[in-house]
Amino acid sequence: MLLLNLDEKSREPKYHQVLEGIRSRIEDRTLLPGERLPSTRRLAETLGVHRSTIALAYQELWSLDFLDLRPGARARVRERLQIVTTVDRTAKSLIEWQATASKASESALNSHRLVSPVTKGDESLPAISFRSLDMDHRLFPLENFRSCLTRITKKHGAALLGYGDHAGFLPLRESIARRLQCHSISVTADEIMITSGAQQAIDLVFRMLASPGRAVAIESLTYSHMLPLLRLSGLQPIEIPIRSDGMDLEYLERMIGKEKPALIYTMPTFHNPTGVSTDQAHRERLLSICERHRIPILEDAFEEEMKYFGKVVLPIKSMDSRRIVIYCGTFSKVLFPGVRIGWIAAERECIERLVGIRCFSDLAPNTILQAAMDEFCRNGYYDRHINRMHRIYRRRMQTAVRALREFISPEWAEWTDPSGGYLIWLKLKPVSTPAPDWKSLFAAHGVQVAHGRQFFFSDPGDTYFRLSISTLDEEEIVEGVRRLSRALDHAYAKNQY
Amino acid sequence: MLLLNLDEKSREPKYHQVLEGIRSRIEDRTLLPGERLPSTRRLAETLGVHRSTIALAYQELWSLDFLDLRPGARARVRERLQIVTTVDRTAKSLIEWQATASKASESALNSHRLVSPVTKGDESLPAISFRSLDMDHRLFPLENFRSCLTRITKKHGAALLGYGDHAGFLPLRESIARRLQCHSISVTADEIMITSGAQQAIDLVFRMLASPGRAVAIESLTYSHMLPLLRLSGLQPIEIPIRSDGMDLEYLERMIGKEKPALIYTMPTFHNPTGVSTDQAHRERLLSICERHRIPILEDAFEEEMKYFGKVVLPIKSMDSRRIVIYCGTFSKVLFPGVRIGWIAAERECIERLVGIRCFSDLAPNTILQAAMDEFCRNGYYDRHINRMHRIYRRRMQTAVRALREFISPEWAEWTDPSGGYLIWLKLKPVSTPAPDWKSLFAAHGVQVAHGRQFFFSDPGDTYFRLSISTLDEEEIVEGVRRLSRALDHAYAKNQY
Repeated sequence: MLLLNLDEKSREPKYHQVLEGIRSRIEDRTLLPGERLPSTRRLAETLGVHRSTIALAYQELWSLDFLDLRPGARARVRERLQIVTTVDRTAKSLIEWQATASKASESALNSHRLVSPVTKGDESLPAISFRSLDMDHRLFPLENFRSCLTRITKKHGAALLGYGDHAGFLPLRESIARRLQCHSISVTADEIMITSGAQQAIDLVFRMLASPGRAVAIESLTYSHMLPLLRLSGLQPIEIPIRSDGMDLEYLERMIGKEKPALIYTMPTFHNPTGVSTDQAHRERLLSICERHRIPILEDAFEEEMKYFGKVVLPIKSMDSRRIVIYCGTFSKVLFPGVRIGWIAAERECIERLVGIRCFSDLAPNTILQAAMDEFCRNGYYDRHINRMHRIYRRRMQTAVRALREFISPEWAEWTDPSGGYLIWLKLKPVSTPAPDWKSLFAAHGVQVAHGRQFFFSDPGDTYFRLSISTLDEEEIVEGVRRLSRALDHAYAKNQY
Repeated sequence: MLLLNLDEKSREPKYHQVLEGIRSRIEDRTLLPGERLPSTRRLAETLGVHRSTIALAYQELWSLDFLDLRPGARARVRERLQIVTTVDRTAKSLIEWQATASKASESALNSHRLVSPVTKGDESLPAISFRSLDMDHRLFPLENFRSCLTRITKKHGAALLGYGDHAGFLPLRESIARRLQCHSISVTADEIMITSGAQQAIDLVFRMLASPGRAVAIESLTYSHMLPLLRLSGLQPIEIPIRSDGMDLEYLERMIGKEKPALIYTMPTFHNPTGVSTDQAHRERLLSICERHRIPILEDAFEEEMKYFGKVVLPIKSMDSRRIVIYCGTFSKVLFPGVRIGWIAAERECIERLVGIRCFSDLAPNTILQAAMDEFCRNGYYDRHINRMHRIYRRRMQTAVRALREFISPEWAEWTDPSGGYLIWLKLKPVSTPAPDWKSLFAAHGVQVAHGRQFFFSDPGDTYFRLSISTLDEEEIVEGVRRLSRALDHAYAKNQY
């Protein structure tokens, strides 16, 4: 006799409780394949529910492949479940995945493991992390975004849930075009496509170019994901040294003379990892070099919105009268990264080609979050949020720079003076050999930084750290710099003996 | 003097009205670069608002780069806007994108244009479309999904808006693992990754394999996106003919003897475009061939859930004791495609490698929709929806098959007898040369079908059409088949003269 526990007070419908009860008994093999269940009438009487409740549960169990139902016969547990139990969960795969995977994907795997390390510090002292370029969750305008989500599901209804535009939700592309005007970029909605963050934007551009032997000029040092990204598309990097005022343009011109790259990738504003921005003259010169040689520029403007200090330098794209600049931006570094919405602004034909690739790589972005983000922009929430972020981070960055001056001796390190964004780049003075294990040293002092190594293609000789203040408030910043100071003091004090 | 129209009754905050008023005047060049704005005091008096309202508007305009603000001086319109107006919007790009783009991306572009055609029919007769494999929006359980969205934003808060797990939201992976048990697939959450639809799942697997000269065995005919997808990763197709009972396994073995593919891609259940499912014996034989040769199988189970007729055949993955099957599924073909959520179930090491690639291609999926979908599953809405879909499509497919028998003469065509899903594959009898322009002929009769051509790599000789009933109700199906019948009658009547 089948006894099931029905919870009278539960909000879960009765039929579903019956369904789950039987399902779990089949799964734990209390009910065996081939076994007959009671008739719907009988079970209904036993459980004190209406017969249709049992019939519905049986029908769903049939549709879930748990039962065989035949007119006039009692329901039976399906034979199929025997197969599940024969799968040996400890068996190793017949496939050697390492041999099956390409070299490029091997490189992605290793980099993935590198950039996602789990750093365990002293458990009694929760670490302050300057490592992450995530956003400060405490500043997320969640309520506003939630109200936008609710509003758009009411406004657009089921249309939100069907396949969307391959290029992205048109009203959002219009909102972005409008927003780009604030940065003096003049494009229309059909010169914009929505991507799954700036990361997909770069990946799509690289996939568009991917041909054997092709090369892309990049700043050296650069975004830590760049090398695996290039490798995945089979592109070669041409490294252009970066100086305190940006990419070395003389070097670039000489390189172009030797080997013309298919593209130049640059982060002119708040460069990652150094935080440096190039000036107007540098941008004009880079643009003019690329126009002369007809080389497209991929301008990565991931922190464009975070210009909260002094004079603004305009994006290269704003001067792009000859349409050679592919500009990519994102909501991730000012609003919230979790919606995964970035964009590309480029000439129409270029956009059409990129949309063609996206159509085969992941078809289209989801419409729901795009519509919610559009609503968020159109209601003025986005402008207001940026304003708030500017006020907050102007203070936070001032605090960080002041704390560095106060606590970090110039005999230990020097660092960049950022004009916005979240990043400070720290260069250490030489320390006695053997150099300390920095990661353990910092962990012991309850602080985390990003080691500079990951941003170089080859060993830079010196030791660098990237400090990101994106997730920390003023108090945390000051305490973090204090801990950094104690760690460095420890390293350099040893140095003197 | 600056006159702005403030709407007292508007819900838009005053400061925002001021901001927008000034912005539009700058954009339409009523206010020119360099021009001074009134002091905050003066403008506040003119407009009858508090001075802080104007100050806030000016500050936001500054943060949006429209104004220069200096202490003690009046606000000025920024010079930068001149640059915008110097961009000639008709200028052609200096870059020849066609030469810059790779051949593979060119192929993607052309296929993209092919698969997204705009078919204009007789305007007076709105077309009934058997062409799309979109879902019937009328069946979307929007209210339930909306309630899940609201609930999870309250439950998880800001955590939803930060960067998420590269492999996907863990609770959803658990829900999918549980759901896969219904298909006798026994995997744990760490053997699952979430993708942006089944499309990204296939793309990631192909990118993992991509090495020059490598080949993938595919059914010929197959999913129309397959060729551009393979090309994007630089993989070669090995075509294995498909017969009425599935992939020709003798042919496959002979091919493997000549050239071992890196992977075999197959759609054993409701194959696209034919709608055919292979039987248990065929699946066992395919698995055993691949185990013997150590070739991974990519099992595309995009319509697995739509088994609404008779005896169920289990997925190949359910028998995968040697862990060689990479199984991909999606919510798109039973629930709604717009959330763009699919998944891959495979051995842990394989999943880790795929996540490594995703980490560089688009970082991570958004967490919000994953959490909402998880809530949807855990509340029993998903099971209930599938049940409803089964009831509805069992009837719709019966109606379609009945209508075909009634209205389409066996002298015109023959078609497959589907055991579920949405697709019927129609093969026409030879028609007099020259064959009619089918697209125009069908358009003239107010009906659309997918031409079979796009599913073949080379000219199949015969004429095929794929009929999808996924967006049509019973009445529309019957009327659509009637129109199809009239069009065919027209073509074959001519045939006799």
